[in-house]
Amino acid sequence: MSSDIVSPETKFRTGVYPGTFDPPTNGHMDIICRATRVVDRLIVAVAVNAGKEPLFTLDERVEMVKAELLTAKTCAGVNVEVIPFDNLLVDFVVEAGASVIVRGLRAVSDFEYEFQMAGMNSHLCRELETVFLMASDKNQFISSRFVKEIGRLGGDVRHFVSHQVAARLDERFKIKKS
Amino acid sequence: MSSDIVSPETKFRTGVYPGTFDPPTNGHMDIICRATRVVDRLIVAVAVNAGKEPLFTLDERVEMVKAELLTAKTCAGVNVEVIPFDNLLVDFVVEAGASVIVRGLRAVSDFEYEFQMAGMNSHLCRELETVFLMASDKNQFISSRFVKEIGRLGGDVRHFVSHQVAARLDERFKIKKS
Amino acid sequence: MSSDIVSPETKFRTGVYPGTFDPPTNGHMDIICRATRVVDRLIVAVAVNAGKEPLFTLDERVEMVKAELLTAKTCAGVNVEVIPFDNLLVDFVVEAGASVIVRGLRAVSDFEYEFQMAGMNSHLCRELETVFLMASDKNQFISSRFVKEIGRLGGDVRHFVSHQVAARLDERFKIKKS
Amino acid sequence: MSSDIVSPETKFRTGVYPGTFDPPTNGHMDIICRATRVVDRLIVAVAVNAGKEPLFTLDERVEMVKAELLTAKTCAGVNVEVIPFDNLLVDFVVEAGASVIVRGLRAVSDFEYEFQMAGMNSHLCRELETVFLMASDKNQFISSRFVKEIGRLGGDVRHFVSHQVAARLDERFKIKKS
Amino acid sequence: MSSDIVSPETKFRTGVYPGTFDPPTNGHMDIICRATRVVDRLIVAVAVNAGKEPLFTLDERVEMVKAELLTAKTCAGVNVEVIPFDNLLVDFVVEAGASVIVRGLRAVSDFEYEFQMAGMNSHLCRELETVFLMASDKNQFISSRFVKEIGRLGGDVRHFVSHQVAARLDERFKIKKS
Amino acid sequence: MSSDIVSPETKFRTGVYPGTFDPPTNGHMDIICRATRVVDRLIVAVAVNAGKEPLFTLDERVEMVKAELLTAKTCAGVNVEVIPFDNLLVDFVVEAGASVIVRGLRAVSDFEYEFQMAGMNSHLCRELETVFLMASDKNQFISSRFVKEIGRLGGDVRHFVSHQVAARLDERFKIKKS
Repeated sequence: MSSDIVSPETKFRTGVYPGTFDPPTNGHMDIICRATRVVDRLIVAVAVNAGKEPLFTLDERVEMVKAELLTAKTCAGVNVEVIPFDNLLVDFVVEAGASVIVRGLRAVSDFEYEFQMAGMNSHLCRELETVFLMASDKNQFISSRFVKEIGRLGGDVRHFVSHQVAARLDERFKIKKS
Repeated sequence: MSSDIVSPETKFRTGVYPGTFDPPTNGHMDIICRATRVVDRLIVAVAVNAGKEPLFTLDERVEMVKAELLTAKTCAGVNVEVIPFDNLLVDFVVEAGASVIVRGLRAVSDFEYEFQMAGMNSHLCRELETVFLMASDKNQFISSRFVKEIGRLGGDVRHFVSHQVAARLDERFKIKKS
Repeated sequence: MSSDIVSPETKFRTGVYPGTFDPPTNGHMDIICRATRVVDRLIVAVAVNAGKEPLFTLDERVEMVKAELLTAKTCAGVNVEVIPFDNLLVDFVVEAGASVIVRGLRAVSDFEYEFQMAGMNSHLCRELETVFLMASDKNQFISSRFVKEIGRLGGDVRHFVSHQVAARLDERFKIKKS
Repeated sequence: MSSDIVSPETKFRTGVYPGTFDPPTNGHMDIICRATRVVDRLIVAVAVNAGKEPLFTLDERVEMVKAELLTAKTCAGVNVEVIPFDNLLVDFVVEAGASVIVRGLRAVSDFEYEFQMAGMNSHLCRELETVFLMASDKNQFISSRFVKEIGRLGGDVRHFVSHQVAARLDERFKIKKS
Repeated sequence: MSSDIVSPETKFRTGVYPGTFDPPTNGHMDIICRATRVVDRLIVAVAVNAGKEPLFTLDERVEMVKAELLTAKTCAGVNVEVIPFDNLLVDFVVEAGASVIVRGLRAVSDFEYEFQMAGMNSHLCRELETVFLMASDKNQFISSRFVKEIGRLGGDVRHFVSHQVAARLDERFKIKKS
Repeated sequence: MSSDIVSPETKFRTGVYPGTFDPPTNGHMDIICRATRVVDRLIVAVAVNAGKEPLFTLDERVEMVKAELLTAKTCAGVNVEVIPFDNLLVDFVVEAGASVIVRGLRAVSDFEYEFQMAGMNSHLCRELETVFLMASDKNQFISSRFVKEIGRLGGDVRHFVSHQVAARLDERFKIKKS
């Protein structure tokens, strides 16, 4: 395929995939891997999100995404970094030398949130593009919110997250219960 | 910005933006120009669409998109080709050496159509990615369908299409009326 | 209520409620009656709609809406006119001295169609306002399309349309069958 | 599970799953099999649908659904009948002694159509219930419309339909092409 | 109707209708009554929902639903139980010997929530079916959230809830105010 | 235009545009100005909204909307009042002698909230009409929520709010940070 040829006009593209990743799900990892087809370097930007009181600390969430990437075979050899951020997303993106924001879109997404964010960001920085990748069909109904709810009530979350994330959830809820 | 650096792992990416372009609107041209930020080469793929009985012939539609590109300043210097197609989209994309399908998404899009097409295409060719760009706010409500309806009834379509496309519509409807 | 006082700044407002009315349903009549609270004069504008091949002729549809208005008690004493039109809606509205387009909105409306029409019309004539009235809960699921389908198959459409409209449907389908 | 016990108040329930099945897809078969958990006898009601000009004749579509049922292991032993119909759905349902209409719902369904149909049917026959089953995630984006389009253009439809339906599509389009 | 015949293959079906019922509205009661057509035994499962800080205690909510059932004529003679739960819904359902989860769906539902819940539950327990019943048109816009808001501000909630629930709301807000 | 004529049947109409206005955005001001075409007197009703913990006090929000109106040229000469309220909206509306509630509707609105509110209000007071005006395309993606988030993180909010509101936000977040 001609997509392997690097001609003079080839641009090196950095993308940012922002999220809370509390915790990272199969849906997140799928988007990360597929995003590497669209950009040459991907920064997974983990939001502090103090307001929402995440279940895992920022450090834990960064660590979990990193651990997922180590074991995700499909992403092998791709330049993916995991960086926490607590400033304005468009500022973070520009400082990181990125030109693309990546978002996953489910058929049951919160379109209001996604479209407002993309629309307002395009005004804050005209050079930025938000590209939406559609969640794979098998990940259409996974949400971190329900994963945590199911984990809290002792359900089997390994349908939706990796074994190591499932272990983290188990541990977290044991601590909370004891 | 580091996005100008061409490192060894930089991929040359070809994208395909498929549509009927009957006629091309400001919304289409905006997506085309913005898509050039996401891929290194863009193919605007004009569908035959025999079933829908387009107002303009395939040749006319290809010609119109080409004429638009000549005058679109924002796209200057970018590698954009306009090619008609009448085969299966994923076949066309693969034959063209492309790896990305670009689609514009409006807040009032026909999500059913867009999501089914992207979902089924991902099964037909796992290597393909469909990326959705959100229509700019000023183009959120433009549709070729209404442009034709307004043109047919003598309304001023220059709010929604270029002057040259408006002239084409005028001409077409004069012929139809006389 | 102060809404009865006519002060110097009181404006006389004409509204246009456009549609195909093939046939007029309880949902249409409800919007017509409620629209008379928002404007001082209401024009029910019956679209020719040649493309869609209506079941009833334009004359029949105008006649049916007029007949409905005669028996609709809630609208008694209100200035409602029924006028056919075949030109551009915004042209019709301006020529009629109207400043408001009225549309009914159901929770399951074709939002794509409604928002595109309103958005494009606002560009064609900046002085026009489209106001949306929400369909009453009891009329949320009535559509002319299904009314015709049910009538064609001999179902009882009097849940959704008046007795006189139901009689018209019966007659129409008898003619078609014989 | 107590759901196996037949107590005096146990009702025998017949459900009708109506559709065009032009052709039957994996999504349809999944709904059929799952519907057998909700009712004791299921009638797959194949609509004539003369207006839409189906690709397959009514006889062919009935035959295809029957063939699918023979090979569908998950439905083994369950009482499923396939019956064509050309009258009003609620009349068909009542005549068949059924009390439930089953519909599949995708996240990207045509909700306008589904809700209007269910809402109007509930007025035509107050005893009827429409129950919606959510399409399985792997079938969220399958539609007969796209299956036919893909088949017509020579794409591999076996991702979305059974081998025997795929063979039928191949045959149909060969005939059309030659 | 054959639906009264109990043949050998007739299954006894237990369904669970989960919710917070804070307070139970006309919309909830309508779904409960209609759900009894689809299952032979219905368990109304009242969620603790500690996180959302309900207005009424779990005991009060269970009591209110029970009181509603006593006066609801349409449900007379049907086996409906009201049970509180604080564990994982699918665990509760399986322990109760149920095979069906019942949910009401409004045209303006929070589809994101409903579809994610149903989708994730289907992975947690493949034997379970979630069936959606569409809210009756007259109940399309009733929500417990607004009922409480209206009650708090002294509005007449008897359009949306029974007289006894209205009395409870009055009492609750009087206590809060004094 | 005949809309300038005040005939005997001309009604003086008062409308209420309720909201939190925390802070007022370009989107709010656009709806306010356009609403003055539909009613003769407009009351901007600023909700206390104690539950949501607004960023600005009620007094500040009332003051800000008033300041906006002074500088908004398009609204010059129109009778617009700004009034705080903490009671039931329909009670406020009736006491104010108004007959119309005005709401802005974006393509990505929270339709669930808007339709439930309008639907329940129509039951509380049958004489009231809620009219929805569609947000202008350039304001489709503006939300107070994101404006505050962007302001808090030091982004340039002047794309979405007036200079004086932007100054207020700056001031507020400086205080919060120091």
